[in-house]
Amino acid sequence: MVLTTFGESHGAATGGILDGFPSLIDIDLDFIQSEVNRRRTGQAFFSSSRKEDDQFEILSGVFEGKSTGAPIAFITRNIDAKPEHYDQIKNVYRPSHADYTWEKKFGIRDYHGGGRASARETLARVIGGALAKLLLKKHGIFITGYVSQIGPCHLDDAFVLQEIAIPRSKIGCPDPQTEAGMIKILEDVKQDGDTLGGVISCTIKGVPAGLGEPVFDKLSADLAKALLSIPSVKGFEYGSGFSSASMKGSEHNDVFISSEQGTITTKTNHSGGIQGGISNGNEIYFRVAFKPVSSLMKDQETINRQGEQVVLKGKGRHDVCVVPRAIVIVEAMASLVLADHLLRHRSAVA
Amino acid sequence: MVLTTFGESHGAATGGILDGFPSLIDIDLDFIQSEVNRRRTGQAFFSSSRKEDDQFEILSGVFEGKSTGAPIAFITRNIDAKPEHYDQIKNVYRPSHADYTWEKKFGIRDYHGGGRASARETLARVIGGALAKLLLKKHGIFITGYVSQIGPCHLDDAFVLQEIAIPRSKIGCPDPQTEAGMIKILEDVKQDGDTLGGVISCTIKGVPAGLGEPVFDKLSADLAKALLSIPSVKGFEYGSGFSSASMKGSEHNDVFISSEQGTITTKTNHSGGIQGGISNGNEIYFRVAFKPVSSLMKDQETINRQGEQVVLKGKGRHDVCVVPRAIVIVEAMASLVLADHLLRHRSAVA
Amino acid sequence: MVLTTFGESHGAATGGILDGFPSLIDIDLDFIQSEVNRRRTGQAFFSSSRKEDDQFEILSGVFEGKSTGAPIAFITRNIDAKPEHYDQIKNVYRPSHADYTWEKKFGIRDYHGGGRASARETLARVIGGALAKLLLKKHGIFITGYVSQIGPCHLDDAFVLQEIAIPRSKIGCPDPQTEAGMIKILEDVKQDGDTLGGVISCTIKGVPAGLGEPVFDKLSADLAKALLSIPSVKGFEYGSGFSSASMKGSEHNDVFISSEQGTITTKTNHSGGIQGGISNGNEIYFRVAFKPVSSLMKDQETINRQGEQVVLKGKGRHDVCVVPRAIVIVEAMASLVLADHLLRHRSAVA
Amino acid sequence: MVLTTFGESHGAATGGILDGFPSLIDIDLDFIQSEVNRRRTGQAFFSSSRKEDDQFEILSGVFEGKSTGAPIAFITRNIDAKPEHYDQIKNVYRPSHADYTWEKKFGIRDYHGGGRASARETLARVIGGALAKLLLKKHGIFITGYVSQIGPCHLDDAFVLQEIAIPRSKIGCPDPQTEAGMIKILEDVKQDGDTLGGVISCTIKGVPAGLGEPVFDKLSADLAKALLSIPSVKGFEYGSGFSSASMKGSEHNDVFISSEQGTITTKTNHSGGIQGGISNGNEIYFRVAFKPVSSLMKDQETINRQGEQVVLKGKGRHDVCVVPRAIVIVEAMASLVLADHLLRHRSAVA
Repeated sequence: MVLTTFGESHGAATGGILDGFPSLIDIDLDFIQSEVNRRRTGQAFFSSSRKEDDQFEILSGVFEGKSTGAPIAFITRNIDAKPEHYDQIKNVYRPSHADYTWEKKFGIRDYHGGGRASARETLARVIGGALAKLLLKKHGIFITGYVSQIGPCHLDDAFVLQEIAIPRSKIGCPDPQTEAGMIKILEDVKQDGDTLGGVISCTIKGVPAGLGEPVFDKLSADLAKALLSIPSVKGFEYGSGFSSASMKGSEHNDVFISSEQGTITTKTNHSGGIQGGISNGNEIYFRVAFKPVSSLMKDQETINRQGEQVVLKGKGRHDVCVVPRAIVIVEAMASLVLADHLLRHRSAVA
Repeated sequence: MVLTTFGESHGAATGGILDGFPSLIDIDLDFIQSEVNRRRTGQAFFSSSRKEDDQFEILSGVFEGKSTGAPIAFITRNIDAKPEHYDQIKNVYRPSHADYTWEKKFGIRDYHGGGRASARETLARVIGGALAKLLLKKHGIFITGYVSQIGPCHLDDAFVLQEIAIPRSKIGCPDPQTEAGMIKILEDVKQDGDTLGGVISCTIKGVPAGLGEPVFDKLSADLAKALLSIPSVKGFEYGSGFSSASMKGSEHNDVFISSEQGTITTKTNHSGGIQGGISNGNEIYFRVAFKPVSSLMKDQETINRQGEQVVLKGKGRHDVCVVPRAIVIVEAMASLVLADHLLRHRSAVA
Repeated sequence: MVLTTFGESHGAATGGILDGFPSLIDIDLDFIQSEVNRRRTGQAFFSSSRKEDDQFEILSGVFEGKSTGAPIAFITRNIDAKPEHYDQIKNVYRPSHADYTWEKKFGIRDYHGGGRASARETLARVIGGALAKLLLKKHGIFITGYVSQIGPCHLDDAFVLQEIAIPRSKIGCPDPQTEAGMIKILEDVKQDGDTLGGVISCTIKGVPAGLGEPVFDKLSADLAKALLSIPSVKGFEYGSGFSSASMKGSEHNDVFISSEQGTITTKTNHSGGIQGGISNGNEIYFRVAFKPVSSLMKDQETINRQGEQVVLKGKGRHDVCVVPRAIVIVEAMASLVLADHLLRHRSAVA
Repeated sequence: MVLTTFGESHGAATGGILDGFPSLIDIDLDFIQSEVNRRRTGQAFFSSSRKEDDQFEILSGVFEGKSTGAPIAFITRNIDAKPEHYDQIKNVYRPSHADYTWEKKFGIRDYHGGGRASARETLARVIGGALAKLLLKKHGIFITGYVSQIGPCHLDDAFVLQEIAIPRSKIGCPDPQTEAGMIKILEDVKQDGDTLGGVISCTIKGVPAGLGEPVFDKLSADLAKALLSIPSVKGFEYGSGFSSASMKGSEHNDVFISSEQGTITTKTNHSGGIQGGISNGNEIYFRVAFKPVSSLMKDQETINRQGEQVVLKGKGRHDVCVVPRAIVIVEAMASLVLADHLLRHRSAVA
């Protein structure tokens, strides 16, 4: 299963083709639209004021409400594109954006809102991910992401997600008290024209044992790649993650036990549901770090294409922090990886 | 460029084929052997006492000392294999090993020393990585890994690697004082029959701007996958990594400046040399977390294939901590990713 | 470079994404439209009367008239789709169509005009191929297909294409006398409600020596796959092709000679410009066989999904022979293969 | 499932890695060796006198006689390599060999017996194909190739293979009278120091309906690529092939019928068991054209690397005709394609 996407921030449309999606899945358009809405801008004080209706259209691969096995193509027209807004950055390299690197790579750059390097590209991931979720759901697999850190505010290390459904009315943090702190700091930082980074945690329930390939295409390795491919992501860890580095083997090892139902499980889950790159049937969990948004509402020094020092004005429509809107993107990328490995696993045994 | 590997811990041989390697590279066998020696067991008090000569042989793709463009195949015979040592684990699932997951996936398991899931599989990565290094060297790219943490001992956060050449006589930590602490704790933990995790940091110099694809195959995403595919790795971060989550945009943004030579660089390097998934010409750096070794010299509880509780005896030949030996593996995987993107980049512009 | 396509005959749209297309190519929309027009139905007595405007739209990857290196997406809306026409085939397996096999594979079938298995899918190939031609043109490579056989009428074996530009006003056969015979037989067969097969020959000039991989991805092997992927194609041969089977080595070998300009060429070109899977700088030529159109204007016996014998009425809008319209599809697929190998070749040498 | 191969004609060894091969297949080493023996040189008057024991060794992926799901690596040492024999061709481009094109591509050439471009490379295909056959056999699929033409001698067009087992004692032609003619002409041509081309036909029984992807990865397209990747192959046709070009639709269409057992089949099989790129459950058959061997025992004119005209002496150890030995290679490549599609098909339906 391969998702190929296309589209620039202020071009005609963004979209993608999901190839290799199996047949006979009910394609629930309302569910897909609800996923799209989760990443939409213009919804909260901390997100960009760009207004996109984000009405996607499915162009192929679905017949009488079911997938046919043919490639599923989808597009979303860009309707609030304002390319003229971007003339000031035409010859300027914005700090910590991809303007400079894209130009170095391709010798040309669509400077309208970041072009292809814009986070608008993630809309197609959400739609592809929603399709993957429909497949996973049919197999009893469910993915839930949540905000575990924004700037200095974070959930307690001992926090354990109890309910799979996170109330998403605000910013996707499952602990009301921590969330209140996060909102406070977001407001303060917005006031300053500044931005914040954060961490999204994600948990996956219902994964059968056996998914993932043992060497290069480990389930954990493919998750890492998928998550690191999201704009602004700087780190990935699963299970005990970086904290495992300071542990002893006798603390860290997950002792196998037989459950009362006779199935095999482990006492602890430092492995994060993956051992030797292959799922073991336990809950998979991981964490993803996002850097702060690079576009500020403050003036910044930078240089232009001639190498001259210039001042980049703080204006435009930008998020204070992408993490709340990025939850659904994290879930989408994880869903695509899981769905792909679910299908690959079918050829493991003769 | 694709590396395909094979081989089990106690099978006839391990090896691989590096396909798509360009022609006209001088194949320096001594260099490759020196890389192989860096991961060899039996060299230090903290590493497994298994003795492998690890004499690799190149079978193809090299003619009169140069690569020909044909696939380069290489093998290393297993000479100190002792499959009979493993009868006690034949029917037992060792905690935090891949015994259980491999069996769930494939319905069969080579239980001799972990079979394919053994860290012995990484030998082929080192040889493939050494070949990649020969290509990178020709293009002025150099990769250096070092130990930045073992158990609770770690380099100061402000530590900056000065010299690209790390004295590797001991455990690959560039700060002698920290290293002394690491050795002390390794000795203590070995005494207890226990094991430790750690962190390897890696820095890459000389990468030209422009490597990496902008969306799914970001240079950072491919590095993440390559590193997470190494056994025992639990996390990856590049540049500011997880620490970026608590930073503000105004602190984190890397301001572009013109160097005195007229080239473009940045004041800080929180981006870790990669912006929008594409290298910007600055130093690339990243960190990789390793969990503690799962095989202990202590008895552990676990269950067997019948679901009965059994005691796993602490014996065999195991590392106390893999991090020192894993430096060259980390470098190898990063080299393969860089070499591949160096070649891919050639088709960016018409 | 990868082309991914989508779309069913009577769905909303067909289209594709061309990923890996290099930057800085002038995207000549008029040229692409002229290629699209070459495959359009409703233009001649022997082609389907379905009227499609076939106005394609490029959605991404082009900025100020040039490719940017980002994926180029394109769609063409289906405007003369008449799904209700197809109710008679809903439960019937049309002879030598993909109705039965698609249903066996996916358990579901879009029965409107063949759905995804319709030749309408080739429109996206033509657009992708036109883009590839723009890249090839920049490198001095030109592809010309022509009709060499329709039913029993064929060009003389000794025929050699003199002019690269074929007058395409009629059916794309470069010899007027042969073409007259072809038109006569097409008219006769149409009268009978029957259909005809044929052969397309193709010649490629300007290919530099060195394209193609030596073993599995031979240039000839990739051409074969690309051509056999076109609906109705039953055979492929290049250079001397099947006739080589009855030749002796001393007749068949292409003797190397130095041209007057000091370049190396061969006296004969039985190799068809490819030796050991790699282009040698000579003209590449190949032939592709098409079976007769399966949809007849005659009644045919067949069975329905219940296994009952039924009569399939001869109606609808069908070609008498696809070969004239398929020339541009053959050229498109060959162009995609050549363009891909042109880019791959860049990583052959360190 | 991917086969990667390596090895030059006079290097240390040839071999390969079959990755993605499912677990729990009995690995019958005697069967694999018997397949290897079918392509061995030095067995008949018309084949090269090079003597290779061709004792392959499996290095990984097999445990207690069964595949484990891990990559299966195998090598065969070259024991009758005589690199010094090849000094005369060091600076000479042999007609219709890959000497010139390889050098143009890679800037370097292993001139010992053709190096990587030697037909010795096909040994690894035979071993990989034998493994694939073991998988196919478990699913009731059987492949049989036979010689249908050598030079001017060929089977009658109406010939139909009755028995799946061809007596292979001589040259693999199932009709004794035609075979006698073939042997006669081989002897005559050998006398002259010349060589001959030919055609191999192949038939596949037991393929379930549903294998193959509908658009680019049609079963027929993948077969075409696999077969054209064999050295010396110049053409591929399946089912009615090139003869379909001169047929009418009413003649060519395969009418669906219900068999007495209630299964669906067709009256004729011009489709060659594949419709719309997907198998329909009927017998698959195809034909492959081989050019005559390029190495002659006669003197030939050619040029050297300096562009000077030279005479290439007719000596060495060469086949008069490769077709008899190539049967097992044709079967191997078809087996790998079928096995791969058998596995891919498992993800067609949710």
